[in-house]
Order: sequence, then structure tokens, then C-alpha cells
Amino acid sequence: MIETRRDVRAFRADAIPDDTLLRILGAAHHAPSVGFMQPWNFIVIRDADTKQQVAASFAEENARAARHYQGERAALYDSLKLEGIIEAPVNICVTCDRTRGGPHVLGRNTIVDTDIYSTCCAVENLWLAARAEGVGVGWVSILTIEALRRILAIPESILPVAYLCVGFAREFLDQPELQRRGWADRLPLQEVIFNERWGEKRAP
Amino acid sequence: MIETRRDVRAFRADAIPDDTLLRILGAAHHAPSVGFMQPWNFIVIRDADTKQQVAASFAEENARAARHYQGERAALYDSLKLEGIIEAPVNICVTCDRTRGGPHVLGRNTIVDTDIYSTCCAVENLWLAARAEGVGVGWVSILTIEALRRILAIPESILPVAYLCVGFAREFLDQPELQRRGWADRLPLQEVIFNERWGEKRAP
Repeated sequence: MIETRRDVRAFRADAIPDDTLLRILGAAHHAPSVGFMQPWNFIVIRDADTKQQVAASFAEENARAARHYQGERAALYDSLKLEGIIEAPVNICVTCDRTRGGPHVLGRNTIVDTDIYSTCCAVENLWLAARAEGVGVGWVSILTIEALRRILAIPESILPVAYLCVGFAREFLDQPELQRRGWADRLPLQEVIFNERWGEKRAP
Repeated sequence: MIETRRDVRAFRADAIPDDTLLRILGAAHHAPSVGFMQPWNFIVIRDADTKQQVAASFAEENARAARHYQGERAALYDSLKLEGIIEAPVNICVTCDRTRGGPHVLGRNTIVDTDIYSTCCAVENLWLAARAEGVGVGWVSILTIEALRRILAIPESILPVAYLCVGFAREFLDQPELQRRGWADRLPLQEVIFNERWGEKRAP
């Protein structure tokens, strides 16, 4: 029997106090950004109907994704906790305004996606600041950009980068869920470090 | 007269001890990743010739970028500290292996760039862990992906995401350089927060 964690509650039901949430968003807003562009916005969602729409979009895309797995792997996939959209007291959509700062953003002349990279740094800051407050964050990636744009009225020039479920955590696992459940292993650190150029291993 | 900080040394010359660097890379490696994909690699560069090649590529692209500015803005641009490639004892190129984990990475079915997003989370972890060690990090974005691939022998399936200059910091500024120098202002936090959907301001 595979232990099902899909419906385990990850979050406590109590609201996040405004000052706590503002500290977390403040940490995100203090992320580094290319040309000090600060291309991010944070859409804070508490409305049950909005969450239901996002959850429905997840369910549809997740059913599609599940078809890639067979047998035991399919059963394990089905048992995983992959979203907490409805149960989380707060959802946050982090977006990237690709036009902010005008046509010539300092440092964004050769690699234009550095605005998105900056937005991801803000997401990681948010995640770590939340952890320090006892607040858990889950990034739901099984959603489409189109659905998020439609549900949250996000214009075409704005990219929804991350959809986050946020609330006081009932527990913090000592390993990522996918590691603990045997879905994948952590790579040894030395395996991901190269010396001087791609593929060259460090001297022992 | 505009104060020139372009040639101010940002880093001390002393090497980063191996255990310190491994702690910093370990923090990066513990970033969250889609489907526990861990798509990153860290190419640690100390070779003077390699740094010279990267610095030459920066100089070329920076000359091109500088043409977008005129008058006082051009003088200010020219005075900014935008790289520390040669002076930093260590450079680190953080890459994203877009094929890691095979064709079906859990959670990466609708938004395929989530591997890159994960890599950016690793960069931010690296940055913060470095700060805690007194180590400064500068992200040089005025480089081309093609030049990095050529200089560091990075294959086509691997995306160089970030090129970082790393070393013990001579000082940590209390504001981002671009803010302190009047290039751009920090946006008020409330301006980047929306309520429930795009464009809706929080209730006062």
C-alpha cells in the first residue's frame, strides 16, 4: 500500500496576520533585480471562488500530467501532495512585468530573460522569509499561464511566474516530499560542481 | 563631477577557503526545484585566462549597451561598477541542464521554464548564503549566452543562467548601488501588491 499524502493538510487554517505577510512580501521585494528593475508584482488571493477556479485548472492539467506514469509510479504520483490551493489561507501569484523600466533596462541588453530571473530571486526570498515566520510555501507549477492570466485578469505583457500556496505550516518535513517518498534522490553536491569549464571535475 | 565607482575594488584579494565555498554551493544546491530536478551545475572559475576572456566579452557588450544613454545619463552609466570579473578571486557560472530528469519531470508539464526558475532560486540561495559568510556576489548580466558557451565549453542543451563574481566583500552597501547613485528608486512595497486580481489595490 502506498501512503497517500495527497489530501493531507499542509497548512493550518488560521489567517496570516497582515504584518507577517508584509514582512514576507517585503523580503521578496528586496530581492536583487537586473538594473534595479523590480519587475515583480504580488497578487494576494484569499477569495474562495478564485481559488476554486485555480484548483479546477490544476485538476485538469494534473490529470493530463498523470498519464505519463504507469503502474507503481502512477500510484505514487497519485499519492503525492502537489497542491494546497483551497486549504491555504493565502495564495500569491508572483508576476513579472516585462515592460517595467522602459525599453533599455541597465544590464538587460543581451539576456532579456533576466527580468524573469530577478522575479525568481524574489520568489526564493519570499520562500525563505516565510520559513523564518513558520509559514510554509508550496509552488504549484501544474497550471497554465493562460489560465492564470484569465482567472487573475493579468495582461499579456505580464508573465505569471509563480503560483504559491501560503499558510502556517502544520509541519516542516526534514526532506523534500519527493525525496522522502522515493520519487527522486538528492544529487551529491560534488556531482554538480565543475572546475574551470563544463564537465571538468574538481581535483580531489 | 560624477564619482566614478567603475574601478573601485569590490572584493578583497584573498581566496575563499574551500569549506566556505562548499557551504555556499551547498546552500545553492538545497534550493527547491521542480520535480526535485536539481537542474543546476556550478562551474567554479579561478583561471586568469578564462576570466580575461569573459571580461573581454563583457567589455564588448557593455560598449554596445552604453550607446543607449546620452549626456549625464551616459556619464553616470560609465561611472557605475557593473562587473568584478578579474578582481574577484572566484567566478561561478550557474547553469541549467534542460534535459535533466528525462522527458517527464514532475510538475514541468505546462510551464517548461520551471527548470530555469529553479536554477534562479539556487542563485538566490547562493547569494544569501554568501552574504552570511561575508562574501559578496555580483551577477554580471552584460554577457552573451553564446560567449559563455564558447569560453566555458557549455553544450547546447545547457543554459548558462548566471555569471557571478564572488569574493570577500570590502564593504556591503546599505542600498543597492543603482539606488545610492540615483539611477533608479526603490518602488514602495504597497505599489507592487495587488489584491485578488491584477491591478486591484489593497484596501487601506
